[in-house]
Amino acid sequence: MSSPTPATSLDQAQAITREEIFTAHQGGKLSVELTNPLDDRRDLSIAYTPGVAQVSRAIADDPQLANSHTWASRLVAVVSDGTAVLGLGDIGASASLPVMEGKSALFKRFAGLNSIPIVLNTTDPDEIVETIVRISPSFGAVNLEDISAPRCFEVERRLIEALDMPVMHDDQHGTAVVVLAALINGLKVAGKRIEDVRVVITGAGAAGIAVAEILLASGVSDLILIDSKGALHTGRDDIEGMKLEMAQRTNPRAVAGGTEAALAGADVFIGLSSSKVPEAQIASMAEGAIVFALSNPDPEIAPEIAVKYASVVATGRSDYPNQINNVLAFPGIFRGALDAGARRITTEMKLAAAAAIAELVEQPEPELIVPNPFAPGVADAVSRAVMQAAKPGE
Amino acid sequence: MSSPTPATSLDQAQAITREEIFTAHQGGKLSVELTNPLDDRRDLSIAYTPGVAQVSRAIADDPQLANSHTWASRLVAVVSDGTAVLGLGDIGASASLPVMEGKSALFKRFAGLNSIPIVLNTTDPDEIVETIVRISPSFGAVNLEDISAPRCFEVERRLIEALDMPVMHDDQHGTAVVVLAALINGLKVAGKRIEDVRVVITGAGAAGIAVAEILLASGVSDLILIDSKGALHTGRDDIEGMKLEMAQRTNPRAVAGGTEAALAGADVFIGLSSSKVPEAQIASMAEGAIVFALSNPDPEIAPEIAVKYASVVATGRSDYPNQINNVLAFPGIFRGALDAGARRITTEMKLAAAAAIAELVEQPEPELIVPNPFAPGVADAVSRAVMQAAKPGE
Repeated sequence: MSSPTPATSLDQAQAITREEIFTAHQGGKLSVELTNPLDDRRDLSIAYTPGVAQVSRAIADDPQLANSHTWASRLVAVVSDGTAVLGLGDIGASASLPVMEGKSALFKRFAGLNSIPIVLNTTDPDEIVETIVRISPSFGAVNLEDISAPRCFEVERRLIEALDMPVMHDDQHGTAVVVLAALINGLKVAGKRIEDVRVVITGAGAAGIAVAEILLASGVSDLILIDSKGALHTGRDDIEGMKLEMAQRTNPRAVAGGTEAALAGADVFIGLSSSKVPEAQIASMAEGAIVFALSNPDPEIAPEIAVKYASVVATGRSDYPNQINNVLAFPGIFRGALDAGARRITTEMKLAAAAAIAELVEQPEPELIVPNPFAPGVADAVSRAVMQAAKPGE
Repeated sequence: MSSPTPATSLDQAQAITREEIFTAHQGGKLSVELTNPLDDRRDLSIAYTPGVAQVSRAIADDPQLANSHTWASRLVAVVSDGTAVLGLGDIGASASLPVMEGKSALFKRFAGLNSIPIVLNTTDPDEIVETIVRISPSFGAVNLEDISAPRCFEVERRLIEALDMPVMHDDQHGTAVVVLAALINGLKVAGKRIEDVRVVITGAGAAGIAVAEILLASGVSDLILIDSKGALHTGRDDIEGMKLEMAQRTNPRAVAGGTEAALAGADVFIGLSSSKVPEAQIASMAEGAIVFALSNPDPEIAPEIAVKYASVVATGRSDYPNQINNVLAFPGIFRGALDAGARRITTEMKLAAAAAIAELVEQPEPELIVPNPFAPGVADAVSRAVMQAAKPGE
């Protein structure tokens, strides 16, 4: 996990010490608070017995009232089995909890949404789905997080089918939305159209496949998805499931081999695996190339190198320009879906979210293709766009 | 549900309107907040990536660190299947949620503990236990609530076995602790010893059985538990499970029949069913009788009537003296158990909690046998007593 460029690693650049990080995590990062005072017997009689019985009876008579008179309908469950946590891999439920607490903190900070981490000590897709369905009256939306591929595809698909509420695996779709937003503005800088560009994605996991899908939905026609064995194409007999499906929908020129073959003449490189890409391959890309080297903490190609050949360079790191950060997307997507009363987070809603994020940058420049997550109004703009794209009853 | 004495019903006495109750429940009664500010990229790098990865990795290496560096170890899950909600019965998960939010609010208000409602859309004991075990890395204690008997006994027993954390069904043991506390002080007022009194309990559900158990553990030797068919005794062939077990442990004089037979000459009546007791039966009790008519909102005998014959009268209502209110017990019990790092809430801990509550009333009087829940220091005193009673590793 050590960085090849330690002088620019985030911790050092911002002088964040290990002690500071651990102190900030002492006791956890969340608390549950009361929305109304509870100072005397009268308050108690309203919030608890006997007053609460009237509300419970009313919900029993009209289940719709649970939406307005409990916290559940706007509560996001951040669900993980701890199998694909950040760059750490399968570290288990308890060890994933600080990340899920962080995610819940971001939901509150950026979208004002209540959220609770639910970490599971099972990794079986059947059991994960069954468990979340059983506790589902407790919340109003599900953010799946850090569940490893290919199980994440099945878990998300089955929960979407089983639950009448928004469900989204953020590692897939949050990433996809922000990458598309960045690409929209990157293409403006490069002076290219999305229909015309050749795109190469390394990493055919959760993020890689979701990015490929949203780019296909956005009009990209020449896209190559590369896993650890090389480009996905229909001639490969070692792939199945989502990879096989993507092989059928991508790589129209049937390019075989690895990044060397795929990147020659390509317009866009999106790195979503930890494997390095040599400088010569970046140099072989088309004029005005766009390079998103998103592996964290070590980008697939050092930004200082990539910028010699590319018109736009983005990373996943906050210490370089153009950080591709999911926090630009998921808070507003969930709030928009909940505000719309949507049962599904559709492709149209994700495309609208990406467009809204892109539009927040008035004049895209090589080092400014995505907004600052702390800029006021990001989640507002995203949630409005998502709400408008939501169709009633979806 | 209408009261026979409407002029004294709580809502009217305190002039709480339906509108006021529903307004207070709008949007729910809880919120999730951040314990640290999240105002800039630096804060984000501490609470989320990349900083959080150091904490997650540390917990993966040393699971004990989850206790100190996540919120889970001091987070109480308030779990219900909505089958025995207040006086409303089986109203389902969503309709039970306002009650569970209220319970979580009380945990925060009275013990400073974070708490989340988990309501389940299954009533199968196997599925309830399995579900809570699977999500158990998310929290540090389980308060079972409003689960109907006899399933509640099995669910609690199996969760205690399965989980290394405090688990307590509050309808059973919270009630039992407060009843014992009130009885300790009631006996002081009546000038009787717990070893000497004859006790009659109506209602052999969750609360009735738990009250019987804690009274047996406190030295009561003559106790009759009455269900809808009459007194439990070993001659009955229509009882099984916990009721059969209680028949074997109680009723040494083998009294058969209902309250008429049992109450004649009894020292203590504890009503935990909704069935009325005629004035004549209360009049038949021993000199200096103690009457706890705990059914809500309609006590088994009107307190105005009972007080003509009894030295001490208590109810479950806040508009009469001596309200038997679980909130005196459960916040401090859970905090004490968590502070002690206890894996179990033992009988010793419950007895200590009851003694601590009783001791908060310096000079018990007929209309003052339990402390006011809003008196400062109740949960502190209970949690200290529970912590002292906890044995390491239990």
